[in-house]
Amino acid sequence: MECGIVWIMAAEIEFLPRGTVTSPEGFFAGATSAGINERAADKLDLAVLFSEAPCLAAAVFTDTKLKAAPVLLSQQRLKEREKFGAVVVNSGCANAYVGAEGLANAAEMAGLVGEGIGVAPEGVLVASTGVIGVPLPMEKIRASVDRIILARDGGSELAKAIMTTDTFAKEAAVRAKDGQSEFTIGGAAKGSGMIHPNLATLLGFITTDAAVEKEFLQKALKKAVDASFNMISVDGDTSPNDMVLVMANGLAGDAPPAPFEQALEQLCIYLAKLLARDGEGATRLIETTVGGAVNLAQARAAARAVVSSSLVKAAVYGADPNWGRIMAAVGRSGAEIKESKFDLSIGKIAVVKAGKALPFDKSAVIKLLKGKEVPVSINLNLGSSSATAWGCDLSPEYVTINSQYMT
Amino acid sequence: MECGIVWIMAAEIEFLPRGTVTSPEGFFAGATSAGINERAADKLDLAVLFSEAPCLAAAVFTDTKLKAAPVLLSQQRLKEREKFGAVVVNSGCANAYVGAEGLANAAEMAGLVGEGIGVAPEGVLVASTGVIGVPLPMEKIRASVDRIILARDGGSELAKAIMTTDTFAKEAAVRAKDGQSEFTIGGAAKGSGMIHPNLATLLGFITTDAAVEKEFLQKALKKAVDASFNMISVDGDTSPNDMVLVMANGLAGDAPPAPFEQALEQLCIYLAKLLARDGEGATRLIETTVGGAVNLAQARAAARAVVSSSLVKAAVYGADPNWGRIMAAVGRSGAEIKESKFDLSIGKIAVVKAGKALPFDKSAVIKLLKGKEVPVSINLNLGSSSATAWGCDLSPEYVTINSQYMT
Repeated sequence: MECGIVWIMAAEIEFLPRGTVTSPEGFFAGATSAGINERAADKLDLAVLFSEAPCLAAAVFTDTKLKAAPVLLSQQRLKEREKFGAVVVNSGCANAYVGAEGLANAAEMAGLVGEGIGVAPEGVLVASTGVIGVPLPMEKIRASVDRIILARDGGSELAKAIMTTDTFAKEAAVRAKDGQSEFTIGGAAKGSGMIHPNLATLLGFITTDAAVEKEFLQKALKKAVDASFNMISVDGDTSPNDMVLVMANGLAGDAPPAPFEQALEQLCIYLAKLLARDGEGATRLIETTVGGAVNLAQARAAARAVVSSSLVKAAVYGADPNWGRIMAAVGRSGAEIKESKFDLSIGKIAVVKAGKALPFDKSAVIKLLKGKEVPVSINLNLGSSSATAWGCDLSPEYVTINSQYMT
Repeated sequence: MECGIVWIMAAEIEFLPRGTVTSPEGFFAGATSAGINERAADKLDLAVLFSEAPCLAAAVFTDTKLKAAPVLLSQQRLKEREKFGAVVVNSGCANAYVGAEGLANAAEMAGLVGEGIGVAPEGVLVASTGVIGVPLPMEKIRASVDRIILARDGGSELAKAIMTTDTFAKEAAVRAKDGQSEFTIGGAAKGSGMIHPNLATLLGFITTDAAVEKEFLQKALKKAVDASFNMISVDGDTSPNDMVLVMANGLAGDAPPAPFEQALEQLCIYLAKLLARDGEGATRLIETTVGGAVNLAQARAAARAVVSSSLVKAAVYGADPNWGRIMAAVGRSGAEIKESKFDLSIGKIAVVKAGKALPFDKSAVIKLLKGKEVPVSINLNLGSSSATAWGCDLSPEYVTINSQYMT
């Protein structure tokens, strides 16, 4: 966060009230109910994001070996093409593990949208989320694309259309001012199971009217994702469909690099925390900060181990001050640790100092564990790197949701 | 398993009825209720395993950076000393993360036992399991050690005394005959949360009357553990206390290496499956075999990814035929995979062939998922290595157990 402070002196950044993925200049969105998943036939499930000016684009994808068709198609198009005009996204069906027809369907979906808005088919990117192993119901999609009405204030429709087991839509926008330059970054994302470091069933769509170089855009996105979407965990599972995509149409003119990176990171962290908070069955957000690590990678690994531990998550659900599980999670994270230097606090209450349990006010810790946000701080006292990760508690409801997803 | 068949032609192996850790010649055990955990004051919680002839010993320990005191002490003693006469083990308190007093308490516990049975204090190994961060109640232990009565048929008392949230004791013994040589291997183990590849809160005590070299014993144990205890997962968490210890007193004379390795592996796999089946809140065992991998490490990683996936586990609990989650788990396991070669069956029912979903009898698959053992077979069709992993389903009961462990 030290960098943040340096930058804030130079530039101003603010979250916009009711900010959406269409808050930046020139972006339009709309959605419809195509009935892709028969069990939620009335839900918005097919959306288009469009820019009136062609966009540079960059993306971070799932690193699984078995990727869904829309991921493969979008990856290929980002390699082969410079500018993009739109994204089409559906929920209810992942278009994954259906053989060669998956790619053909993803391409057709892009083509149908491109045709409607006057963009070359290859200029349309594609994303999907939902049940794996079921082909996209193309007849429903063919019959529905034309019903989508693109509007400048359509961002919230897209945020709703990409939801699966999410209980609320996740969207936001930030505006940054730095001297003469002023630009906006908007975003929408969905979770909410299968969320884990190195992505997961996570779709994120980010837009900006800033003019930036393509290579810089890719680097800035990777950096922001590493500090945000890659620092959350719901259940340790990852999906074949994950992607975070950023599109920049340049309509607000050149943006200075540092403020752009900072604004993008703040937006991504905001959306990532919403995803963790809305983990399937979650009742509270766990925020774990690890300081004093020998390097950033180890700080991140240690913080992620805590928010990923089923035992820690279950203890937080039960407001059980079983801090030994937190320590055990850090111990197995791979980070360098000296037990005799290990400090742990829950909120402001020190629980372990120099590796040894302290007597603490149990009822005060239980009260903290029952809060909407549970702050856990660890200091390894070995170096100067720190990182923060976010997760959620594990409730019986998680199991209920995930034992009846398909049936 | 090919090796198994080759060997079976040369040697006979059989599981003994009511086999225990004291089935091999010369081993004695006993336990008492020391009241270490006040919430289960009447439970057997302090046990001693003793051999009338000094033993060679070998062990595999947790690889966490923050190890409990009994692990550190036993590791050190195994490095410094050749022969051991006994092990003392308690449940109810992990003796972990309590500072320097932890090591002193572990050493005192060993000394108390050594004194009572006429073994040097350094000839006694120590293990603990239970709540982390609480010092051992040494007064209770001092007052209780003398109450332990060692008996040739005391193995089952030890198996009961090491249980924490386990719902049944895990013990077994195998006898192997190979020409002139005949030897027995016995074992007891406990789970049942925090069980994950690379050990976890898992204690395993294995005894044998076979005479083997120390170096061979360590190698054979590591090999057996890699194929058994390291192939099970309950919740992805590991603990500071894990250890699997083998003690060999040589009373039955020399054992040929191959039969010994096979018998040890079979015993470890048997105990490991019991641990997986008794995972906290578990209602069924998931057995996943991955074949056609390019090497053994990848086959193991892929099989473990399936039994470790919260989403797969929740789906099995709900008997939800959501096979896409199995495929997604293999996809993110790191194993080399070609989607177009991927085959998946549940029981004998093919669900995915060459990467593509097959139409299948849904009610038949649901019936399989409701069985006590759920068999999942994957063929990557890329190489000739295979591996099997075991896990359990994830039920709301798991969360209930783990949200109220300490409070």
